[in-house]
Amino acid sequence: MKFSINRKFFLDKLNIVSRSISVFSPLPALSGICIKVEDNRIILTGSDSNISIRSTIVPNEENELKIDSTGSIIIESKYLLEIVRKLDSQSLQFDLIDLTKVCISNNKGKFNLNGIESNEYPNIDFSIPGTKICLKSEELKQIYSQTAFACSDKDTRPVLNGVNFKTNGNILSCSGTDSYRLARKTVEINGNYNFNITIPNKSLSEVVKSLSDSDEYVDLYIDSKKIQFVFNQTVIQSRLIDGIFPDIDRIIPTTQISSMCVSSHEMASVIDRTNFIRNEKIHLIKLECSESETHIKTSSTEIGNSDEILSTCEYTGEPIRLSCNGTYMLEAIRALSGDKVKLEFAGLMKPIKISNPDDDSALMIVVPVRSYD
Amino acid sequence: MKFSINRKFFLDKLNIVSRSISVFSPLPALSGICIKVEDNRIILTGSDSNISIRSTIVPNEENELKIDSTGSIIIESKYLLEIVRKLDSQSLQFDLIDLTKVCISNNKGKFNLNGIESNEYPNIDFSIPGTKICLKSEELKQIYSQTAFACSDKDTRPVLNGVNFKTNGNILSCSGTDSYRLARKTVEINGNYNFNITIPNKSLSEVVKSLSDSDEYVDLYIDSKKIQFVFNQTVIQSRLIDGIFPDIDRIIPTTQISSMCVSSHEMASVIDRTNFIRNEKIHLIKLECSESETHIKTSSTEIGNSDEILSTCEYTGEPIRLSCNGTYMLEAIRALSGDKVKLEFAGLMKPIKISNPDDDSALMIVVPVRSYD
Repeated sequence: MKFSINRKFFLDKLNIVSRSISVFSPLPALSGICIKVEDNRIILTGSDSNISIRSTIVPNEENELKIDSTGSIIIESKYLLEIVRKLDSQSLQFDLIDLTKVCISNNKGKFNLNGIESNEYPNIDFSIPGTKICLKSEELKQIYSQTAFACSDKDTRPVLNGVNFKTNGNILSCSGTDSYRLARKTVEINGNYNFNITIPNKSLSEVVKSLSDSDEYVDLYIDSKKIQFVFNQTVIQSRLIDGIFPDIDRIIPTTQISSMCVSSHEMASVIDRTNFIRNEKIHLIKLECSESETHIKTSSTEIGNSDEILSTCEYTGEPIRLSCNGTYMLEAIRALSGDKVKLEFAGLMKPIKISNPDDDSALMIVVPVRSYD
Repeated sequence: MKFSINRKFFLDKLNIVSRSISVFSPLPALSGICIKVEDNRIILTGSDSNISIRSTIVPNEENELKIDSTGSIIIESKYLLEIVRKLDSQSLQFDLIDLTKVCISNNKGKFNLNGIESNEYPNIDFSIPGTKICLKSEELKQIYSQTAFACSDKDTRPVLNGVNFKTNGNILSCSGTDSYRLARKTVEINGNYNFNITIPNKSLSEVVKSLSDSDEYVDLYIDSKKIQFVFNQTVIQSRLIDGIFPDIDRIIPTTQISSMCVSSHEMASVIDRTNFIRNEKIHLIKLECSESETHIKTSSTEIGNSDEILSTCEYTGEPIRLSCNGTYMLEAIRALSGDKVKLEFAGLMKPIKISNPDDDSALMIVVPVRSYD
């Protein structure tokens, strides 16, 4: 194989493909990027067997790709990226020296890198699943930022390590939960669908990081086993998580006894600055709400205690006192990213509904914690 | 004790004092900042017994300090900083509740923090050593950035963990070495002195980080046991390292067989991008210099090899081929921070002199490595 290509363009593609590569790969070939040069295109593949990324480069003015001869090789991802990132010329030349060695060069120097023969690369099935929906990149980014943080990071219930995508006609509900809190984002899609899948949090994160400002839309191809995200000649394929995702609708309270509306910035600041007052590593906050005043209190026998009044708070309903995890509350408020935040209380130990009063597409739930004082 | 103070001003002072505080303090009191409020000033003290910092605040317009009553307490440094950093009011009020508890408040909220009684704070001797020199802050920063990186980080020879300050009349030579390389910066001082001390690298680092743009000069008070850096009502005191610092002058080659001058940017880039081609974790580069062409090569049986030609290099003298540690060479070039860098060779296994042709106040030495190929 022999080709030359614009360095920056190639680097962008390598960066995306390398996202799938794990540093702890059991198979040596999977710590590398497989470069396959065909007559009229280059295919880059990376995989950690959970997530696989394939990017195709077809010659055009931007990428300045010139293919002189075909061939293929696997090159250690971190070395390849390092060279392409740091060589400061506009274009780079790639020459296969033998089946396991490649020379990367520009006008001033050359790097000979040891690689692995391309036939050692596992066969990855990139067949296209049958169901297709299209989302705006911005929508997908928002789904991620408003749900994924609530996923569990523990191994005990694998299905909670992912974001659930569930359709009801033309409504797509995306939910993350670790069973103590919940984050749900709803978007409208074109057409009626019927699927209920759970996408690993990590895969979704890699997709979102790979989207550049110029990628306006992302196509999602879905079946019961895998999902493909397709944009800009790149396919990011992820396995889905098996198991039944909890029925979210049953958790969301339908009644309320009181509610409050407060500046998101104020509430987030107050919670954030008490972050160090912890009990057994948990940041517990106590809300004491009444129509005259709302306090946020914390207390730790070891460190001390705090008491702040929310000056922008409007509270309606019966007074209530309850405790919850401050970190969960803070993350929910930040994910909503509105100027104001609305909290709805259904009772002492009932889940708290947290939302943006100016945007009902996202809903957060935090479950209170019993406290004895 | 009771006082109110401008929050930002107080935070700056706390940040400086906290630099001396180690997270692994054997004495609980030393993980805190000692706040002592006197009639007309506040004294903040932090220490890890190697380095001690004392900052005095006298009421003025900028700090808005108002002292209502005197007293003292030790407060856990990380909690104190967290509160003062995150409370967003202009001023803060401090009230001693009892000998071991303080209340920090603003108009909206209050924090009660557990502390330690101030008489548990060790007695730190801040007596002023006899010899005084004055340096510009910029000079001290440059001394640090051009010498400290070459200090040893191993425990085997403690004296190499510091920067040596040695005078010869009105010339101050500052040197760092780990015995494989050397960095020396020379500055002129007012007056004639005769001292030879070694300041712990870490202490010097904390001093440099504490200097703000408004601190034009730093006073250094020196004796054989300790050094004090004094600026802006702050004293940073450090113990000195015992032991005889190696005689630097004997190491610097006095003859040369050849020399080269090259763009610092080019040479640094070429070395930097071969950084991953390592042998047993060491980044070895091979210089092959002749009047017609200068190559920088690297080679590793596992990873591969590289060969680049320095396009901006002017070489005079006999051809030479030698290997050296690329990381050392790169750090020396960066520390010199000139547009060009000059290398002088004294022979195959002789130390290489590295300097900035436009500024002879700094000199770097890197010792070649024997290589068998």
